[in-house]
Amino acid sequence: MKRGFYIGRFQPYHNGHQAVLEGIAEEVDEIIIGVGSAQLSHDMQNPFTAGERVLMITRALEEIGCPFYVIPIEDLRRNALWVAHVTSMTPPFDICYTSNPLVIQLFREASISIKSPPMYLRETLSGTAIRQKMLLGEEWEQCVPPAVVEVILEIDGVSRLRTISETD
Amino acid sequence: MKRGFYIGRFQPYHNGHQAVLEGIAEEVDEIIIGVGSAQLSHDMQNPFTAGERVLMITRALEEIGCPFYVIPIEDLRRNALWVAHVTSMTPPFDICYTSNPLVIQLFREASISIKSPPMYLRETLSGTAIRQKMLLGEEWEQCVPPAVVEVILEIDGVSRLRTISETD
Amino acid sequence: MKRGFYIGRFQPYHNGHQAVLEGIAEEVDEIIIGVGSAQLSHDMQNPFTAGERVLMITRALEEIGCPFYVIPIEDLRRNALWVAHVTSMTPPFDICYTSNPLVIQLFREASISIKSPPMYLRETLSGTAIRQKMLLGEEWEQCVPPAVVEVILEIDGVSRLRTISETD
Amino acid sequence: MKRGFYIGRFQPYHNGHQAVLEGIAEEVDEIIIGVGSAQLSHDMQNPFTAGERVLMITRALEEIGCPFYVIPIEDLRRNALWVAHVTSMTPPFDICYTSNPLVIQLFREASISIKSPPMYLRETLSGTAIRQKMLLGEEWEQCVPPAVVEVILEIDGVSRLRTISETD
Amino acid sequence: MKRGFYIGRFQPYHNGHQAVLEGIAEEVDEIIIGVGSAQLSHDMQNPFTAGERVLMITRALEEIGCPFYVIPIEDLRRNALWVAHVTSMTPPFDICYTSNPLVIQLFREASISIKSPPMYLRETLSGTAIRQKMLLGEEWEQCVPPAVVEVILEIDGVSRLRTISETD
Amino acid sequence: MKRGFYIGRFQPYHNGHQAVLEGIAEEVDEIIIGVGSAQLSHDMQNPFTAGERVLMITRALEEIGCPFYVIPIEDLRRNALWVAHVTSMTPPFDICYTSNPLVIQLFREASISIKSPPMYLRETLSGTAIRQKMLLGEEWEQCVPPAVVEVILEIDGVSRLRTISETD
Repeated sequence: MKRGFYIGRFQPYHNGHQAVLEGIAEEVDEIIIGVGSAQLSHDMQNPFTAGERVLMITRALEEIGCPFYVIPIEDLRRNALWVAHVTSMTPPFDICYTSNPLVIQLFREASISIKSPPMYLRETLSGTAIRQKMLLGEEWEQCVPPAVVEVILEIDGVSRLRTISETD
Repeated sequence: MKRGFYIGRFQPYHNGHQAVLEGIAEEVDEIIIGVGSAQLSHDMQNPFTAGERVLMITRALEEIGCPFYVIPIEDLRRNALWVAHVTSMTPPFDICYTSNPLVIQLFREASISIKSPPMYLRETLSGTAIRQKMLLGEEWEQCVPPAVVEVILEIDGVSRLRTISETD
Repeated sequence: MKRGFYIGRFQPYHNGHQAVLEGIAEEVDEIIIGVGSAQLSHDMQNPFTAGERVLMITRALEEIGCPFYVIPIEDLRRNALWVAHVTSMTPPFDICYTSNPLVIQLFREASISIKSPPMYLRETLSGTAIRQKMLLGEEWEQCVPPAVVEVILEIDGVSRLRTISETD
Repeated sequence: MKRGFYIGRFQPYHNGHQAVLEGIAEEVDEIIIGVGSAQLSHDMQNPFTAGERVLMITRALEEIGCPFYVIPIEDLRRNALWVAHVTSMTPPFDICYTSNPLVIQLFREASISIKSPPMYLRETLSGTAIRQKMLLGEEWEQCVPPAVVEVILEIDGVSRLRTISETD
Repeated sequence: MKRGFYIGRFQPYHNGHQAVLEGIAEEVDEIIIGVGSAQLSHDMQNPFTAGERVLMITRALEEIGCPFYVIPIEDLRRNALWVAHVTSMTPPFDICYTSNPLVIQLFREASISIKSPPMYLRETLSGTAIRQKMLLGEEWEQCVPPAVVEVILEIDGVSRLRTISETD
Repeated sequence: MKRGFYIGRFQPYHNGHQAVLEGIAEEVDEIIIGVGSAQLSHDMQNPFTAGERVLMITRALEEIGCPFYVIPIEDLRRNALWVAHVTSMTPPFDICYTSNPLVIQLFREASISIKSPPMYLRETLSGTAIRQKMLLGEEWEQCVPPAVVEVILEIDGVSRLRTISETD
């Protein structure tokens, strides 16, 4: 049994995440997906709640053919404790898939294996770029799995993002 | 689509929980299981980490035939905010299954539907009773699903509980 | 201008508090009332929210004839910082009216004047005793100012207390 | 009985706030004023403590002819819980007066009525502009009610702001 | 270079602690003393502040002939993160001296060496027993190093303990 | 007995700090060194843990000839409570040595004596400048005491800083 861990903020979950996870699914027996900054929502960088993000991810991965766990992870704001925090909230895992330099350094100091997955169309497929499209009224739907479009429509997510982007 | 929410501390997850969830599985389309007091572990009432409990529950429910989410929920120590906390961490749900009077009151004030599931062998099947058996060296394995026995053995959980129960 | 500070949990605000405040009103120009443990509600010792307690106190003091402030004070769980916490949340005051030994010690170490007001019918007039009457269905209404009865009826407070007192 | 809620940081309370509250006073029976970011003080954007701000507001509203509550509200840094936090700290209210897009979105999702009051001389009457005048030694006194001038002089507030604005 | 870690609440620091540390001093090159529950003070179990306890310990160890560090450690209330918290606040160490079962279990799971030092007159030399003597007006001075007597007299510690032990 | 307090983040501890402390050592009987933002580490402005910084300082001051305490101080994010927080974590002191305007203002409001020590080669000797040298591969070793070079090499600190400075 080999378990891999992958963490992101998923604001929103998009095709780049999906591509990475499809790659991981071929290397491990089970995937643990950490939903980072779980306590944040309703702000410009973090419009969606942890629960909404759990829903997006679970829906999008229904056909991935590899068992997975989706776990909200609240920020701790104490880097030296972060690995212990993550491992206390998740089933045990053997490898962490990440390209984030801080996550790499923290797991390295904890002697946990790390692998940097290839990025998929990084420039256009990023949460920042997709939220920008939503704000400008551009096409964002083709950047995320169809199940994510459904969730965002259901919660009226684009309208939420636009309202909180206004200035008073 | 109807989603039901069920919360417990699951220290450990046992056959009583399993029976309740099998009942709920027949009434809803998806189940959300909240793992309460997620931040607690390694104490007499809460020996297991949230991640270990997520693992127990997921393993035990593999055959339940109803999609489910397992979500760690950290305590907030502010009852008036607890429903908002829970709903921010979970996909939207239609009904809360609980027999806990405080949970009933808090969801009632938030106008969320509540249903109290029948308890299954409450006196013998409780976390407290099972942890007591573990401490006394009595048979506890028949009180929990086989998958939970495996998880507890793998993490050497009984030994952990016994060590922290000693006095210095 | 002389301001006096008085703190309690006011679960609920009762005739004993009212009698003490009527006494203080004759000694100072303005009264600051701190609503302690403001973050607690919906538990057996703290059934009412800070906002509900602010409402009870304000209504009951309408005719006291002395300007007053009602300020929720969240617990800090760090005694050495508590006086600084209180004074940051309140207008400046000259004297603290209290009979609580910890509050006396903390203000004394901060060189703030203290006066212990006479207690009024302490045995029968206490939050504990009144909550007990509510649970047992005994007459509690004569223990609190009429305005407090109204607030508790309006929020269905007795029913809330009874529900959370049940065992599951 | 109709209660209206109005929130701000009030760093400091100024004539723009006063004008808005005078307008609200004609539409409701009671006003609840939330003093936001109550835990902040002694920084460039938040020089005054919650208690000092409570004092400014209370003094300035003495003649408003409408009962009011002034309630410090500490930041929660969790937007999804913020409405529950506010409502737990305040008496119940029917309408929220605000022009802040995030507050609008959060109350809207909680199905609470919102009304955006007309702004009064927004460009010159803002906390930022007034703090800038204090730093530059310009006339700021005519931007705030006379009672606020008195409070700021009493606590030597301009000197505090200037000291913390220095670089070491 | 071998460093040993020893943790306690030291309410107050007494001859039993001193005897243990004198033993450790012969086994390591440097000692790290963690002052646990550093955030607590002014309560019946924790009358002294972290700073007062740092002073007691430093004074009492002046002649121990082994370099030492005295580090306040605030409680985290999350056992799974506690070892990471401790190691982030202290210089690196090779061995933990403790008889506390929870500390043993947590360091064991982190693969850090543990050694249980012999206890010295445990029944009479305990913080609980010494605080009890202080309350009852019995002789407590011979239970602690002379330097600790001085610190407690200087801060009027016995009077503080007695005041907070009163009932209102 | 006169004690002086000096606080910094010490990221890392450098020759400027050393020069200031050598000056203070001639004016007081004991020095208390507060290690600020103790909870931060592994970020660009705060690469080192509190424990690593305690080690740097203690090593570097071995020959200073004045007793000293090194105390980690976690941030409180509430300026009005900060002085009470500091004084609860440290032995009592008579004077605070600081050039930080906020620290000056907070201690001044608490009526504690302040003295601004002369800065030593401020432009080149700053944590920011030294961290920049580490990132660029320039000579940083001559900016810190030899004992600090040893600690940073031992923990592979430069490599840590470089890794977390990368972009993903």
